[in-house]
Amino acid sequence: MGNVEKKLNDMGLKLPEKPPAAGNYVGAVQSGNLLFVSGHGPVLIENGKVNYMRGKVGKDLTIEQGQEAARLVGLHILRSIKEVIGDLDRVSKFVKVLGFVNTAPGFTDQPKVINGASDLFVALYGDAGRHARSAIGMYELPFGIPVEIEAVVEVKD
Amino acid sequence: MGNVEKKLNDMGLKLPEKPPAAGNYVGAVQSGNLLFVSGHGPVLIENGKVNYMRGKVGKDLTIEQGQEAARLVGLHILRSIKEVIGDLDRVSKFVKVLGFVNTAPGFTDQPKVINGASDLFVALYGDAGRHARSAIGMYELPFGIPVEIEAVVEVKD
Amino acid sequence: MGNVEKKLNDMGLKLPEKPPAAGNYVGAVQSGNLLFVSGHGPVLIENGKVNYMRGKVGKDLTIEQGQEAARLVGLHILRSIKEVIGDLDRVSKFVKVLGFVNTAPGFTDQPKVINGASDLFVALYGDAGRHARSAIGMYELPFGIPVEIEAVVEVKD
Repeated sequence: MGNVEKKLNDMGLKLPEKPPAAGNYVGAVQSGNLLFVSGHGPVLIENGKVNYMRGKVGKDLTIEQGQEAARLVGLHILRSIKEVIGDLDRVSKFVKVLGFVNTAPGFTDQPKVINGASDLFVALYGDAGRHARSAIGMYELPFGIPVEIEAVVEVKD
Repeated sequence: MGNVEKKLNDMGLKLPEKPPAAGNYVGAVQSGNLLFVSGHGPVLIENGKVNYMRGKVGKDLTIEQGQEAARLVGLHILRSIKEVIGDLDRVSKFVKVLGFVNTAPGFTDQPKVINGASDLFVALYGDAGRHARSAIGMYELPFGIPVEIEAVVEVKD
Repeated sequence: MGNVEKKLNDMGLKLPEKPPAAGNYVGAVQSGNLLFVSGHGPVLIENGKVNYMRGKVGKDLTIEQGQEAARLVGLHILRSIKEVIGDLDRVSKFVKVLGFVNTAPGFTDQPKVINGASDLFVALYGDAGRHARSAIGMYELPFGIPVEIEAVVEVKD
């Protein structure tokens, strides 16, 4: 187990189980040193059953619950990264995060919600985890999930 | 005509005519081996007249009609790629797709809609067509189009 | 002062003051020759006070006001680029722009709004400012801002 995954375990977290694909795409694709990671959602497999977190932040979910969802999404992003490059220690840098928040009317705290994932990346990678980012308020998201996040990371040779 | 375009013709499809630009931007820009492709919409030029498909998926359009729109958008993406790099056979890999679905309230099947484009890329390129992807539900899209899709592809030297 | 910034001044424009970060992220991150720039909003610091432009285009703001907001966002993007690479003349090419417009129901002129930023990049960089782009209609944006824009630019060695 690499250093990043050890740190993850020390934080009391672990990589979640992989859910079935939602469409005709893969978790991440590498080109050169850049790894483009798909939009992921907050999903847990419990007793073989796929459970999506659902709802709109600002109505069905509080900011704090949205942040929890975003942190779970961050763990799925790490899972997909590991699946493609084999070891989370091979990430040299988080480059870009794009966070989609399923938003109740008038809710404008998308940045706080997406911090749930950003804080995780920075906790694990330090300065190399500090990324460029956009956070935006969506009308609807697949399966009614509250948060979807995609990312671009740089991979060591 | 390259192999990919031959396969396209064998599928009974062809690259659509180029519509007028919707703003001050171009269809695609290359940097290194990455080609960043603009958001495209489902538009057909018939008898010199520009006809956009319009409407919200889940209300004005069914999932199947949304998929058809997404496939047409996929063809426009291929058209823009060819315009910049000259030959669709020069695409070494589809890297990333970001799909925007103009969404009726409560509609959450964005992934199925965007499959209309993803399936096309995989049919034409096989494993090299398998891409990372996000699909999200929009409040409005330009001209009232049901689907807009942008992409990143890798180009051979 | 570099050539691009001189041209900016000749246009009667200047780089705005940096606002406080809205979350746990940075303005831009470079990987290879690509600089990924965060989503920026239209914000002005006046007498030490942070003033965001707010409202939905098509209801609270006209297209022209949305374009002004987009141009101000473009200036913030340039500010963040300069902060990371030191000199705006080191940008070799604008590659990709993704423009989010906070949208009133039925408003579909997102491309015209985002032209406020695109026109600025082309005015400053000429053909090297011509970029791939998507413009989409958002349900809500952070702080109620009317426009958020992110970008990818290519940087000289």
